[in-house]
Amino acid sequence: MDFTEIRLSGKTRREHDLLGEMEIPAEYYFGVQTMRAVENFHISRVRLNFFPELIRALADVKQGAAMANRDLGLLDPAIADAIIRACEELRAGKLEEQFVVDMVQGGAGTSTNMNANEVIANRALELLGHEKGEYQFCHPNNHVNLSQSTNDAYPTAVRIALVRSIEKLVASLRELIAAFHAKGEEFSGIIKMGRTQLQDAVPMTLGQEFEAYAANLTEETERLTANMKLFFEINMGATAIGTGINADPDYAGLCTRYLREITGLPLVEASNMIEATSDTGAFIMNSSAQKRLAVKLSKICNDLRLLSSGPRCGLNEINLPPRQPGSSIMPGKVNPVIPEVVNQVAFRVIGNDLTVTIASEAGQLELNVMEPIIVHCLFESIEMLINAMNTLREKCIAGITANEEVCRRMVFNSIGLVTALNPYLGYETSSMLAKEALKTGKGIYDLVLEHRLMSEEELHKVLQPENMVHPRKKIGE
Amino acid sequence: MDFTEIRLSGKTRREHDLLGEMEIPAEYYFGVQTMRAVENFHISRVRLNFFPELIRALADVKQGAAMANRDLGLLDPAIADAIIRACEELRAGKLEEQFVVDMVQGGAGTSTNMNANEVIANRALELLGHEKGEYQFCHPNNHVNLSQSTNDAYPTAVRIALVRSIEKLVASLRELIAAFHAKGEEFSGIIKMGRTQLQDAVPMTLGQEFEAYAANLTEETERLTANMKLFFEINMGATAIGTGINADPDYAGLCTRYLREITGLPLVEASNMIEATSDTGAFIMNSSAQKRLAVKLSKICNDLRLLSSGPRCGLNEINLPPRQPGSSIMPGKVNPVIPEVVNQVAFRVIGNDLTVTIASEAGQLELNVMEPIIVHCLFESIEMLINAMNTLREKCIAGITANEEVCRRMVFNSIGLVTALNPYLGYETSSMLAKEALKTGKGIYDLVLEHRLMSEEELHKVLQPENMVHPRKKIGE
Amino acid sequence: MDFTEIRLSGKTRREHDLLGEMEIPAEYYFGVQTMRAVENFHISRVRLNFFPELIRALADVKQGAAMANRDLGLLDPAIADAIIRACEELRAGKLEEQFVVDMVQGGAGTSTNMNANEVIANRALELLGHEKGEYQFCHPNNHVNLSQSTNDAYPTAVRIALVRSIEKLVASLRELIAAFHAKGEEFSGIIKMGRTQLQDAVPMTLGQEFEAYAANLTEETERLTANMKLFFEINMGATAIGTGINADPDYAGLCTRYLREITGLPLVEASNMIEATSDTGAFIMNSSAQKRLAVKLSKICNDLRLLSSGPRCGLNEINLPPRQPGSSIMPGKVNPVIPEVVNQVAFRVIGNDLTVTIASEAGQLELNVMEPIIVHCLFESIEMLINAMNTLREKCIAGITANEEVCRRMVFNSIGLVTALNPYLGYETSSMLAKEALKTGKGIYDLVLEHRLMSEEELHKVLQPENMVHPRKKIGE
Amino acid sequence: MDFTEIRLSGKTRREHDLLGEMEIPAEYYFGVQTMRAVENFHISRVRLNFFPELIRALADVKQGAAMANRDLGLLDPAIADAIIRACEELRAGKLEEQFVVDMVQGGAGTSTNMNANEVIANRALELLGHEKGEYQFCHPNNHVNLSQSTNDAYPTAVRIALVRSIEKLVASLRELIAAFHAKGEEFSGIIKMGRTQLQDAVPMTLGQEFEAYAANLTEETERLTANMKLFFEINMGATAIGTGINADPDYAGLCTRYLREITGLPLVEASNMIEATSDTGAFIMNSSAQKRLAVKLSKICNDLRLLSSGPRCGLNEINLPPRQPGSSIMPGKVNPVIPEVVNQVAFRVIGNDLTVTIASEAGQLELNVMEPIIVHCLFESIEMLINAMNTLREKCIAGITANEEVCRRMVFNSIGLVTALNPYLGYETSSMLAKEALKTGKGIYDLVLEHRLMSEEELHKVLQPENMVHPRKKIGE
Repeated sequence: MDFTEIRLSGKTRREHDLLGEMEIPAEYYFGVQTMRAVENFHISRVRLNFFPELIRALADVKQGAAMANRDLGLLDPAIADAIIRACEELRAGKLEEQFVVDMVQGGAGTSTNMNANEVIANRALELLGHEKGEYQFCHPNNHVNLSQSTNDAYPTAVRIALVRSIEKLVASLRELIAAFHAKGEEFSGIIKMGRTQLQDAVPMTLGQEFEAYAANLTEETERLTANMKLFFEINMGATAIGTGINADPDYAGLCTRYLREITGLPLVEASNMIEATSDTGAFIMNSSAQKRLAVKLSKICNDLRLLSSGPRCGLNEINLPPRQPGSSIMPGKVNPVIPEVVNQVAFRVIGNDLTVTIASEAGQLELNVMEPIIVHCLFESIEMLINAMNTLREKCIAGITANEEVCRRMVFNSIGLVTALNPYLGYETSSMLAKEALKTGKGIYDLVLEHRLMSEEELHKVLQPENMVHPRKKIGE
Repeated sequence: MDFTEIRLSGKTRREHDLLGEMEIPAEYYFGVQTMRAVENFHISRVRLNFFPELIRALADVKQGAAMANRDLGLLDPAIADAIIRACEELRAGKLEEQFVVDMVQGGAGTSTNMNANEVIANRALELLGHEKGEYQFCHPNNHVNLSQSTNDAYPTAVRIALVRSIEKLVASLRELIAAFHAKGEEFSGIIKMGRTQLQDAVPMTLGQEFEAYAANLTEETERLTANMKLFFEINMGATAIGTGINADPDYAGLCTRYLREITGLPLVEASNMIEATSDTGAFIMNSSAQKRLAVKLSKICNDLRLLSSGPRCGLNEINLPPRQPGSSIMPGKVNPVIPEVVNQVAFRVIGNDLTVTIASEAGQLELNVMEPIIVHCLFESIEMLINAMNTLREKCIAGITANEEVCRRMVFNSIGLVTALNPYLGYETSSMLAKEALKTGKGIYDLVLEHRLMSEEELHKVLQPENMVHPRKKIGE
Repeated sequence: MDFTEIRLSGKTRREHDLLGEMEIPAEYYFGVQTMRAVENFHISRVRLNFFPELIRALADVKQGAAMANRDLGLLDPAIADAIIRACEELRAGKLEEQFVVDMVQGGAGTSTNMNANEVIANRALELLGHEKGEYQFCHPNNHVNLSQSTNDAYPTAVRIALVRSIEKLVASLRELIAAFHAKGEEFSGIIKMGRTQLQDAVPMTLGQEFEAYAANLTEETERLTANMKLFFEINMGATAIGTGINADPDYAGLCTRYLREITGLPLVEASNMIEATSDTGAFIMNSSAQKRLAVKLSKICNDLRLLSSGPRCGLNEINLPPRQPGSSIMPGKVNPVIPEVVNQVAFRVIGNDLTVTIASEAGQLELNVMEPIIVHCLFESIEMLINAMNTLREKCIAGITANEEVCRRMVFNSIGLVTALNPYLGYETSSMLAKEALKTGKGIYDLVLEHRLMSEEELHKVLQPENMVHPRKKIGE
Repeated sequence: MDFTEIRLSGKTRREHDLLGEMEIPAEYYFGVQTMRAVENFHISRVRLNFFPELIRALADVKQGAAMANRDLGLLDPAIADAIIRACEELRAGKLEEQFVVDMVQGGAGTSTNMNANEVIANRALELLGHEKGEYQFCHPNNHVNLSQSTNDAYPTAVRIALVRSIEKLVASLRELIAAFHAKGEEFSGIIKMGRTQLQDAVPMTLGQEFEAYAANLTEETERLTANMKLFFEINMGATAIGTGINADPDYAGLCTRYLREITGLPLVEASNMIEATSDTGAFIMNSSAQKRLAVKLSKICNDLRLLSSGPRCGLNEINLPPRQPGSSIMPGKVNPVIPEVVNQVAFRVIGNDLTVTIASEAGQLELNVMEPIIVHCLFESIEMLINAMNTLREKCIAGITANEEVCRRMVFNSIGLVTALNPYLGYETSSMLAKEALKTGKGIYDLVLEHRLMSEEELHKVLQPENMVHPRKKIGE
């Protein structure tokens, strides 16, 4: 539900900030600073609540800070308790519609942070038996944001949310890999031509081809996981620029410890808080890993579309399951719509990676103010990759069938067969055969027999599938 | 309203296509093919109705085709009339929630085309007094899509929608230019230091700086408009691959003529229909023009942030109007949040341009199947640029004020002043003065007088603002 | 010849600048500032003389400035004359090896400008009967660079050189288009299957396919030429930041007029000199046009590689001329190496376009200091595109042959044929036939006769090539 | 030396390949296939010998293969010995000028591989006492390339060369980091204003700022090294497509073991040879890591240019060592030319990363034919980054000086000071002071005393540098 669809009673409360006063509808848990942000940033129509994982992580951070502040004697235990309970509610999915700021915003995430601070403060107030807006009892800045700055709270929340999102991404990826493995096994006995530079090369099995896709993607689980670990380093306690001004020296450690507990993630304090506060290196690396996955998915989908091209005027080695009629004008046409959409997602992810790159380069001095667009791109890419991979697995890979006879016929009709005869006939004779085959249209098999270069038995042995798709000692040795 | 929020009665109708039968809720104007697309493409959560301009253009295209088919005797006038009325309703904004397919889809736009065909057919059926689904009276393919293919109807609609969107973009741009001009005039008397390579260079007026921004952006109105014209070439009548198979030879011309009338745009038939059907050149060029605008906006916003840096430890030449408190930890801090969000939009647009580029390169043979992601990126970029420019104008440029005294003091304190004395003192003497100023911290003005190189009167004359910010004959000549 | 290979006598001359003195080998026409640049910028190993067109344009600019200065009485006619003669020599290709600065340099082109100023000054000195280094008679700054700044002289030279390079690019492009046209004509009688989404669609001629490539590229000549015109606007007279400080008010017009004469190009003064001095819009637009050409070339080469895939296990519709043995292990293999290299050039051009984009965005205030990398990328891309297109034309397109029988057989064996029967049999029957063909492996032609749906004569008429590859009235009407 | 400068005697030898015969100048160690490649690929003017590291690695690979073939009884020991000696000579830098093929080439590296095979064969022939071209004694394909394919030999050589290049890159990076550390220590006592969003934030030391740069770059040594390890997996023995056709089953392991010995690198056989043969993932990841380094260097250089802006009208906190006169028109101007060139290198590297990305996506089926442009971009980026970092360290960082007084004055004149008073005065009072300071132009220090909010002694204690740049307990606690 978009917040603009919240039914308003007409009742309001008055709030003020540095810039003046404002009437806030009574139903809104967010306050004056969020309202200003909504007015200022009408940009993408994608609000924070488009990515619930981010809201959940903001709740984690605010809870961890509240616990640390309470232990240090900086925050009244009753207020801390109310804040913690409000955060727990957010984590359970409540009040999602109250996160209303545009994902694309100026201010380095201040509006996102204040949206969280205000919603939590007002919910805590209710839990404490007060009215929304009675900030003297629980204030967005003085209590919820205590010992924090946007510049530590926001990137920390982003990192936690990214870790969880990447874990989902990796889970989807693993399922996709399993689907490729299954097909690799299913197709392990189907011999087909391998192609390099789109030209007929040498035989392989269709199973080997699908196993190679599985192997190719398996490396991505490692890359994504390895790069994800860069997010475990957080900068709570850095405050404004990493010097920790106005933070208790024990706060950073305590807060990080609580966040470890709350999230179950092995979070650690950044070793150089100043560097950590302006650095976007982990975002670049994660984006790069996403891009690499996208490139590989796109390459695989290009292959699937090639291998299933036809049915009569293409390679026609495999059949993708039909998902929808392909044409309003061409009867019976079915198109590879699923790989096609995966390709497009990949192109989007590559574009998003560029946005992340440029935004990272634009950071200046003690902060990178462009983080919101980085964050938006990363979350969007992750979600689209998850959706694309799930779609690819369910609606395409699982249903692929092979045209075994077509595959086999192409191998035995191919000139590439001659490569397997190389060790027996020598390169010169093989080349001569290849030329003759190309010129006459005849098959290598027939030509070998015609020229009596090998016996039918020998030939049969050499050209058996299992003898062509692995390294081997020369037959007869 | 998202279609998932449509209240369903539980009644359904049965529809079928190549792949089989399906129950469709009675309230849905779209049918089986749209339903399959919704199932197949759960990718971006951005549906067609996110961009109403596209729906409007689809209605234009379907109406133009119906009129041409009617005139050619291919379509019963009564059916044609119902289709036309349905299209008119769509243009008026009705049934928007029925355009439900994900913007990011496989199939080269087939699902978008079928979503339009089905909604129009079912609405036409109602207008004809039939029930939805009674396609024998008005069929999505046989009547609404008659003489068309996705491969001509979809890109034509996209082009019309893009033209209209670009017109809005240019209108916003013109307003922004006017705002810069107004400031250029307002600040025409304020002298300040020009900077090259971030080093003090020579004097100019703040007005000149803002006029330069206006001039810089004015070129974009020309670029965008010039490149927009590439969209006037459409390929209605191309059908599947541009050969026009199954289309009446007179259809292309007639349909294009009707579309000119309906849209008021100077549309023309593509001179080579086969080329036009697979070509995405106009998209690339438009995306490039958007990117160029983005680059310029970003550069200008970088400048605005630099010029307003401070207030005490930066350049502090201008003040941006405060839009929101800048920090929860630093009292009184106000940040340039509006230029910051414009920068981020620019980075997004640059990323989208890359996606468009890669998707264009991925076209194969007689069609570019990647058009949906191109279309999504272009519409998103245009909207974000419009929002960003409006925001920049209203919430930033209009309220900028100058710190005249700061600007003036920097000029007269600068070493760069010495450049203006060059023609009087010679390069050698000027260099010597510059070195002495740098070493001693003294001002050029004082040093000239101290060394008795010019009289105070002469000096005053040479260093008058109006004498430094334009080419001029040597004073005294 | 690289300047490091110049034989040195051991004699030197002493030169100095702001930073101190330096010994310069007597054989070097460049002086102390160029020497510093060589020391400072050891970056890419690509020197200015890699792009002779740039040197020629620098000579044009310096000559135009000298003429204007002479007419305005600012430059002694004898010195002006010597400068002009030196410039003429440079245009004739002399002293190319003296342009030694790395293309990738800091300083916004100052080092390039000074390299030109120093070489011209020293050559002018020789022409005047002096020794190199006797700058009192002709000084790099005071005479050769008079009334100029790097910030006007450098971009003006770059623009002139780009215009000439783009003209060469367009000439190569036109030749390539002609080669496609020739093949279009040659193949006009060869019927083949058109493909959309890599699936069999409807028939077309191979000639239509090649004509579409020609048409597709023809649009690029227009784009490149249109965008090239943006370079005709130059900023001579702008001096440091466009205010024209220290320039005679008549200088800009006079110099521009002389440059029109020298170059034969319709150059005009920029209407806003301040804007023109920092603006890189024309570079972005030109780079975009190059990128668009690259995308199209890449798409076409992808197609050529697809259409020539095989010979036995691919589409095998056309044969690319063999250029080199394809494999050291696979006898007889020949690969599409020419399209492959064109693809790679295209990817490079796209990468360069990104570099140009980012560098443009990085401009600050009154100058874009990143122009050298922009310039490097543009010249490199143009040259690589020229080389790629010439190679493609000479070594590939000109020698392409068609496998007419393969093409024809695929059409008549295809299920896509059924589309042409649509108007005669109806969509339902056609769909049924398509399904049966797919299931049984039979041909549409045979199935129509088998089911006695049309007479052999009728069928023959409908399925004649000339009746399938253009719009037409229904046969019999 | 370019091979075109080799003095030719006019004597030739005759060579032939699949496509026919050719006369080869006697002085050329390369043969007919290389000659064809030189004719086919006149693209970038950058030949293989531009990157000697690649030649060295090709020699490693050929030597390793010869040793394995010898041990397996496939290669005559005498021939193997000659090949090995030829390889050793290449590693010592001999015959570099004989590596003449354009880096940008079609054929997936076949021409590079054959250039190596031919040069090594001919040099081996000489070592064996034969004439060049007497291939019956040592053949480029049959002996030098034995058990190999371009598709394993070429990527393996590339990987080895990249590992060595990256090691150099990391070494340069470490030196740069050390330079930043040294400045961090040198400037540890200099207090200055930290800035977020270009607005005055809170105090820090200049040493902290430089230490943050060092910390920031230190992460890159880890990233580059981690990603470099992906190159240790090689595919020797894969032959054409990874099935190992025609290779002895023991060859892959043996060859890899020899390559470990020759190179000293922990190379291992790829676990899935088919996947490894088409995969370009390691290139993408390495390119990403280079890009990340580029982004960080660019950000740091942006900062350096900002901090040294002025001298009178900018931040002027630090002085970069002057490297060259900055302007021909503005006396005394010195520009930050070194950071500027580093920025431009960074933009180039980002552009190259895009080229690598697109080329990776373009791989099809069993091979990525676009590897040559990937390889070219990676080597170019690495070299430019090394040059840029060395230049930055030597010519900039090492000579930076601080304007301590300017830095200090800005802190004590700033409004940001008020943040440090927050815990003593409260947010409300602090905000009020900030507003008053901004309005009146007065200092926070003075206002606190004026309003008698703290004693001078207390104030002095709170605002001591060492008390503002780290977290701390409230003074007095």
